[in-house]
Amino acid sequence: MSAAGTAAVSPELEARYEAWRVRVEQALDQALPAETDWPSTIHRALRYSQFAGGKRIRPLLVLAAGEAVGGHPDELMPLCCAVEMIHTYSLVHDDLPAMDDDDLRRGKPTSHKVFGEAMAILAGDALLTRAFHLLAEAPRAWDAGRLRRRLDAMALLGAACGTTGLIGGQVEDLESEGKAIPASALERLHRAKTGALLSACVRGGALLAGADEAALVALGRFASAIGLAFQVVDDVLDATEGAAQLGKTAGKDAAARKATYVSVHGLDGARRMAADLLKEALEALEAFGPRAEALRGLGRLIVERRA
Amino acid sequence: MSAAGTAAVSPELEARYEAWRVRVEQALDQALPAETDWPSTIHRALRYSQFAGGKRIRPLLVLAAGEAVGGHPDELMPLCCAVEMIHTYSLVHDDLPAMDDDDLRRGKPTSHKVFGEAMAILAGDALLTRAFHLLAEAPRAWDAGRLRRRLDAMALLGAACGTTGLIGGQVEDLESEGKAIPASALERLHRAKTGALLSACVRGGALLAGADEAALVALGRFASAIGLAFQVVDDVLDATEGAAQLGKTAGKDAAARKATYVSVHGLDGARRMAADLLKEALEALEAFGPRAEALRGLGRLIVERRA
Repeated sequence: MSAAGTAAVSPELEARYEAWRVRVEQALDQALPAETDWPSTIHRALRYSQFAGGKRIRPLLVLAAGEAVGGHPDELMPLCCAVEMIHTYSLVHDDLPAMDDDDLRRGKPTSHKVFGEAMAILAGDALLTRAFHLLAEAPRAWDAGRLRRRLDAMALLGAACGTTGLIGGQVEDLESEGKAIPASALERLHRAKTGALLSACVRGGALLAGADEAALVALGRFASAIGLAFQVVDDVLDATEGAAQLGKTAGKDAAARKATYVSVHGLDGARRMAADLLKEALEALEAFGPRAEALRGLGRLIVERRA
Repeated sequence: MSAAGTAAVSPELEARYEAWRVRVEQALDQALPAETDWPSTIHRALRYSQFAGGKRIRPLLVLAAGEAVGGHPDELMPLCCAVEMIHTYSLVHDDLPAMDDDDLRRGKPTSHKVFGEAMAILAGDALLTRAFHLLAEAPRAWDAGRLRRRLDAMALLGAACGTTGLIGGQVEDLESEGKAIPASALERLHRAKTGALLSACVRGGALLAGADEAALVALGRFASAIGLAFQVVDDVLDATEGAAQLGKTAGKDAAARKATYVSVHGLDGARRMAADLLKEALEALEAFGPRAEALRGLGRLIVERRA
């Protein structure tokens, strides 16, 4: 991210993201059992995938959305950890031989290559479980308003990860392999598979920070555009970058004859689409003023990234 | 259950369980998307496993524990659905080729035999996700006390399903296959794999019904004894009953050279152990009087069941 980031956002903003990332790493470390805790195999597997060097874009979206409505990072850290654990669980399960059958992820062998298929399935299950468990652990002193916001954020996350979100998108992805699907179906697939969780990060962060309805609607528009842009850029990168750059098998969409934004709209069309979506996303943030600067920066990083 | 039930509990109690089961089936039906909802494959897979004819012992434990402390079934129904979805998810994933590789469950082909491995993995993921999602959907009018109890029940469930509960038990089960393990390790394995979720049903039901600390401790003792008894009886049945009776592959513990209560304590020793655990469980309920009659009956059904 840093290399692309230098171009997309100011050094000051990049430094703020890095400071947030450090806090998220610490919180994730505290939220997961030690490798030596019984039963140690599964805890090694959890930590192997959770600390494999992701860019933590989802927690950053939580924090930046919270900041846009005046929230404090402490209040948002459990959601930051939960969304990142859920993202990791989805990668571990998607990489399984029965699914996308990937050997390489973020430049490292995938969980099932290292720990075996059974342990990779269980590691994904455990990360998903821990995500919700962590959010359920609310401080004893909380009043009804904070308890309610926590439950609402969990409900939002549950919907984003369910069969009309993350899981539904993966089902469609598997079922559309090798088929020519129309642009509308491709958009529905990716709104579910990628967009729903990214949107839950933005709306969930704002919700926990006490955003009003108007702010949630505007942030929802931002999230929707950015979520789609994320996948469009992913497809462009898969078609144009090498494995070393991506840290995963490159060109595999074409090899698997998957419908992508590049196969449907062409390379130039996909690039233009990403730029239009970024413009739409930034317009949705106009009313927030300088407090949304970190969120704007993440929008630019998502669209202008190189990996 | 009915055939064994006639011996273990009164017809009146059996009729009450059946009425509870009907309510749980309805609530589960409402809590899961329709088969025709997009994406339909996963919804068919969810419903195939969720409505494969389980005995619903876990929701019954939730309701009976709630009743023992004066709770109302309406308040407990989301937890009833959640624990049953989690139980089903664990069966679907345990049956996968990479895990126990089972073709038959409750007398029907397992999920991966019908829908394929990828869909079975995703169906399990979806049931786990929906369980927590459902619990997060709390009525708008709730006060701080009820919101707090809901979050506490979710935390309890999260711990029971995590790496020191359900998932940890399955890890140990896989890793102990073909090994002679000591009795203490066998007990730890089953307290995690089976006992933790059963205990969360009893304690979670009581917690949602507003039980005080003393009641929770006593119910915890009941749950702990019953949870262990459940697995001891499972091992006895696997060693003595046929596949037609069990609705799953019989004698496979011995075939897989798994350590069981029968292999460690012998058939008579295991039977005696189950009877002692039932006695211990019933003693823990003495202070509750007639309100715990449904819970006592479930204890007897668990130990005296034939399948």
